[in-house]
Amino acid sequence: MSLLVVGTVAFDSIITPFGKAEKVIGGAATYISWAASFYYRNIKLVSVIGEDWPNSELHLLRSRGVDTEGLQIKKGEKSFFWEGKYHNDMNSRDTLVTDLNVLANFDPILPDSYKQPQFVMLGNLTPDVQMRVLDQLESKPKLIVLDTMNFWMEVALPSLKEVLKRVDVLTINDEEARQLSGEHSLVKAAIAIKKMGPKYIVIKKGEHGALLFYKNSIFFAPALPLQDVVDPTGAGDTFAGGFIGYLAQSGNIQYNNMKRAMIYGSAMASFCVEDFSLSKLQTLTDAEIIERLEEFVKLTKFSIKA
Amino acid sequence: MSLLVVGTVAFDSIITPFGKAEKVIGGAATYISWAASFYYRNIKLVSVIGEDWPNSELHLLRSRGVDTEGLQIKKGEKSFFWEGKYHNDMNSRDTLVTDLNVLANFDPILPDSYKQPQFVMLGNLTPDVQMRVLDQLESKPKLIVLDTMNFWMEVALPSLKEVLKRVDVLTINDEEARQLSGEHSLVKAAIAIKKMGPKYIVIKKGEHGALLFYKNSIFFAPALPLQDVVDPTGAGDTFAGGFIGYLAQSGNIQYNNMKRAMIYGSAMASFCVEDFSLSKLQTLTDAEIIERLEEFVKLTKFSIKA
Repeated sequence: MSLLVVGTVAFDSIITPFGKAEKVIGGAATYISWAASFYYRNIKLVSVIGEDWPNSELHLLRSRGVDTEGLQIKKGEKSFFWEGKYHNDMNSRDTLVTDLNVLANFDPILPDSYKQPQFVMLGNLTPDVQMRVLDQLESKPKLIVLDTMNFWMEVALPSLKEVLKRVDVLTINDEEARQLSGEHSLVKAAIAIKKMGPKYIVIKKGEHGALLFYKNSIFFAPALPLQDVVDPTGAGDTFAGGFIGYLAQSGNIQYNNMKRAMIYGSAMASFCVEDFSLSKLQTLTDAEIIERLEEFVKLTKFSIKA
Repeated sequence: MSLLVVGTVAFDSIITPFGKAEKVIGGAATYISWAASFYYRNIKLVSVIGEDWPNSELHLLRSRGVDTEGLQIKKGEKSFFWEGKYHNDMNSRDTLVTDLNVLANFDPILPDSYKQPQFVMLGNLTPDVQMRVLDQLESKPKLIVLDTMNFWMEVALPSLKEVLKRVDVLTINDEEARQLSGEHSLVKAAIAIKKMGPKYIVIKKGEHGALLFYKNSIFFAPALPLQDVVDPTGAGDTFAGGFIGYLAQSGNIQYNNMKRAMIYGSAMASFCVEDFSLSKLQTLTDAEIIERLEEFVKLTKFSIKA
């Protein structure tokens, strides 16, 4: 059993109304791997970095059960860099800088030991790269999850639609779901997107939680209301990592377990936003996770009968 | 046992991106009373209308267990009129017309039979009118709920703060909670507002659900994801009406029952937005409500253990 994770490993500079962080550890695959590693420890990472990436971070990742054989290190090159600034509401942001660097010519190459994963998490990347990964698999995974963003709908819609045909779960935010489907209602958007391939649609609404659509059922996982949100960067990836990490650990993709995975993912995301970069995730204990899962129960538990 | 409802009874004209309705039945107290009447049938209405109000609507209200002795009818005058236009996202709107008419000099006078209610719902009105109602009560109600809006924070903050000292539950939307407290985090906003008087804070987030804050606990009631939202007008009042109607029926204000009331209120609100004005509420059956409550269970039910 293994979980294949594909995505960026990057440096981020982040400005929020309450503080900033310069050239800190980021990237979709980084957040996904860290979050997943709290539930599952056989993770195969596919990504690319430059020579500037700190060795200590690689050691930390490996100590969490993340295999880095598929992580290409490009000599003399720089890692992907993103700089963003959050608006006052912390829900929206502007991208200030995107330096693709090593990502510009990224060709994901799967080591042989990576080619039969049971679970696959395709983090946000160009749909062609996501497709190249699927093309190298030698057996059908139990579950393939894909994350994407509006940018690819604008510049690579045909490729995105091709790769969507091959995935089981799409994770996407509310505005992106509306853009991809042309429907304002998220219920109608999910119905339209399911016709493109994925059986499960996860619509992420940031501080407003996340919805899981499957057949005619809808499940809603709230976001935990927090006293302080320091930095929302990586929350969606951390959610996805917790979600697929929990599924990989249990090996169960029944709807009831998917719902549970939504809560496990939301719990991880609630930690992520409490500090910049991976600061909170890198010091998190299992006891804190268990406590937080209980908070989700308290937040949502009711009975319609007295 | 009775439930005292105070608020506007009005005509609305509504424009949405998908349709419009001209001079239809509206008003906070109308929505509150209709929603509450599905759970509880001893409602005492305090409001004011003009001679233009249709008699048939009064008969309908009375047939729902709504006492209209405290509803003043001003000869030769016109009822309150509001016209609004929703933006494309249906979450925000512009007010196009506000004709106060009879509301301009509204002095709420409670008939003797109204003066000992167990439950009080003060719908959105000037804080002075809300206070005038409380001043006429002859016994302490079991629960007083107050709804307000940003306008009163801007033009009547001292009066609003006075009346807040005397209520148990404040219902308010997220932006208003931020404005009233000066806090962006809703958790911090609720803590700050609790210090102003109310023990319970209900923060309404429209299509993103509603939060109940009590002591150190938080409960979240989601909004039901709907295929079609026709008109959001009155959804907050309908929520409040379902909330207090359920509490009045059960006579129980323990936290667990408050949580249940949040779901009963959310269920009513989910019907309200499916058509213009009271169209959906006026044709709703108990069977539909029970079915919808079950949908809320399905939407939120999970277990953190496999």
